[in-house]
Amino acid sequence: MIRVPTLFLDPIRCKKNIAKMAAKARENKLAFRPHVKTHQSLEVARWLKEEGVSKITVSSLKMAAYFAQEWNDITLAFPTNILEITTINSLASKIQLNLCVENVEVLAFLEKTLSAPVGIFLKMDIGYHRTGIAVDRFSIIDQLLNQMNQTPLLQFKGFLGHAGHSYQCRSKESVEAVHQASKEQFLLLKDRYQKQYPELILSYGDTPSCSVSEDFAGIDEIRPGNFVFYDITQNIIGSNELDEVAVAMACPVVAIHPDRNEIVVYGGGVHLSKDRIEDPEVGIIFGRVVEQKGSGWGGCIPKMHLKSLSQEHGIVSVPKEKMQDYAIGDLLWVLPVHSCMAADLMKEFHTTDGAILSTM
Amino acid sequence: MIRVPTLFLDPIRCKKNIAKMAAKARENKLAFRPHVKTHQSLEVARWLKEEGVSKITVSSLKMAAYFAQEWNDITLAFPTNILEITTINSLASKIQLNLCVENVEVLAFLEKTLSAPVGIFLKMDIGYHRTGIAVDRFSIIDQLLNQMNQTPLLQFKGFLGHAGHSYQCRSKESVEAVHQASKEQFLLLKDRYQKQYPELILSYGDTPSCSVSEDFAGIDEIRPGNFVFYDITQNIIGSNELDEVAVAMACPVVAIHPDRNEIVVYGGGVHLSKDRIEDPEVGIIFGRVVEQKGSGWGGCIPKMHLKSLSQEHGIVSVPKEKMQDYAIGDLLWVLPVHSCMAADLMKEFHTTDGAILSTM
Repeated sequence: MIRVPTLFLDPIRCKKNIAKMAAKARENKLAFRPHVKTHQSLEVARWLKEEGVSKITVSSLKMAAYFAQEWNDITLAFPTNILEITTINSLASKIQLNLCVENVEVLAFLEKTLSAPVGIFLKMDIGYHRTGIAVDRFSIIDQLLNQMNQTPLLQFKGFLGHAGHSYQCRSKESVEAVHQASKEQFLLLKDRYQKQYPELILSYGDTPSCSVSEDFAGIDEIRPGNFVFYDITQNIIGSNELDEVAVAMACPVVAIHPDRNEIVVYGGGVHLSKDRIEDPEVGIIFGRVVEQKGSGWGGCIPKMHLKSLSQEHGIVSVPKEKMQDYAIGDLLWVLPVHSCMAADLMKEFHTTDGAILSTM
Repeated sequence: MIRVPTLFLDPIRCKKNIAKMAAKARENKLAFRPHVKTHQSLEVARWLKEEGVSKITVSSLKMAAYFAQEWNDITLAFPTNILEITTINSLASKIQLNLCVENVEVLAFLEKTLSAPVGIFLKMDIGYHRTGIAVDRFSIIDQLLNQMNQTPLLQFKGFLGHAGHSYQCRSKESVEAVHQASKEQFLLLKDRYQKQYPELILSYGDTPSCSVSEDFAGIDEIRPGNFVFYDITQNIIGSNELDEVAVAMACPVVAIHPDRNEIVVYGGGVHLSKDRIEDPEVGIIFGRVVEQKGSGWGGCIPKMHLKSLSQEHGIVSVPKEKMQDYAIGDLLWVLPVHSCMAADLMKEFHTTDGAILSTM
């Protein structure tokens, strides 16, 4: 029996999301290296293996070490943190570890301190402007490539880009536009460097582009992460339908306020995170309420959403005619705004078929 | 050596914050029942004991069970979750457990299922409109009081209010105004019920009001929580000076972008939380950067702040003249927007004098 906020995972939806993205990768002859930061779970990652996935992306060395228990080809899609060189050497001696580099200092440091071979992706800025080298800064790119050519332990793999500005989009059309513009910039690198490095990989990220587009010509590898679960944010961006969201938080109803059409649930920022999104109809929300159905959940209830979150409280705005459907002690089901953050906080998934899956 | 994002705690600042609030409580003849959700740490809570504190407030039964290892008088300042009756009974048989109730159904449920005595505070809405009974709904209050009078295991303690709307304030004056208005409403309950219940306690919350005001006449108990650490939000509200903030996140510098005066740190939403605040000068921020000083930190660096957060990345906006002060592999120190959420995520504190304190 569920007594406290509990993150449920629907394995049917999740496996369907995985199968769909794996099929898209196959059809487009793309290597598929999903980002596992969304679930951080060896058990969920086994569902990727069932779809033929043999390599993954992570966002920290701690995550790499955890997944190295069952995976032997891991890219860390985060600027290399030189303070963790001991962990880097330890992992690189056991598995194929790929790192991201964007500056001379880090490469020089690795050159001096590495004791095992690592793959290196040069992190490129393809329009998001969070990290990476601008694609036209050829002098720095050439300098980094030369540095690697002189160091056998530094194995140049290719370029890594993430069109993270797709998260600002609010329609499939605008996602496609961001994707095309990012891809165009990214392909300039292939034009310039493929002759010299025929094996070079263009590794490309972001769930919105990978979900929406059908055109990946020139790209070699995709690294979407959030697609395994999706969430309200991805739905508002245009990446998925609401019935593809594969996680939902079951929250006990603890107070009911008919005078203001609000329900208070046990389920706050320490469960769902404080991530928010502007819903086009109702403004800033922290989650949307779905109907309970069988051992899981069904469709979204219109105009029923989490309007604010405290540390443990969630305040649910409820349509007047729905107020009578909930009693104290019921569970109210919420689709999270950001499934990666909710999973990171909750540390485990209760599947709708009765299993409990752990995370790192 | 610090290699990954690490939450530091300055025990001198923290103990000073505790001593100051304890002194204010003594001077105003208030019982002092601090909220421990901010730190969730038995070790930090021992510093409260050193100031004579003998009772605490928590926000979940799990937290109550953890603190019951060393505390025997605990109020759960959250609407009673009837689904956790087993834990309630188990705790109530060991310690003085006080619960919050705001409706007849919950009280009726407790009446039927309690096996040990619990203290009951009626949760009142004193202006925040998150939870609680409006202070003028005497019929429901009387009904609840009558219900308790007939059930020896339900021991009426008093009324509990939380002026959480003080968090919308942006000056000491407006905090004081919210506090006075909330207190005025709250005291109506004493006027009406003190003759019948001479021992009734008015228990009052919120760090802003408790930090700013000197006038608590009529109130019996205060329950501030965040004051032990404070943070950027409390500073912008007007609760504290920046040099009273007792926690800071040390984040490794992983990339530097002089072309846009930005530094990328290892330190993101899974470390600091996605909580944000509008800084009056620079807009939405996720943390402010401080100078490193000795084994801890000093003052804030003007116009240097976290402008955005991803799961693991923090993007720091840097004044041009400060860009040269940071190199890859350095630690950059950040005051959190919301210290409670950062502590919940990090699960431990490194003190500036070299200890590691654990949380629940």
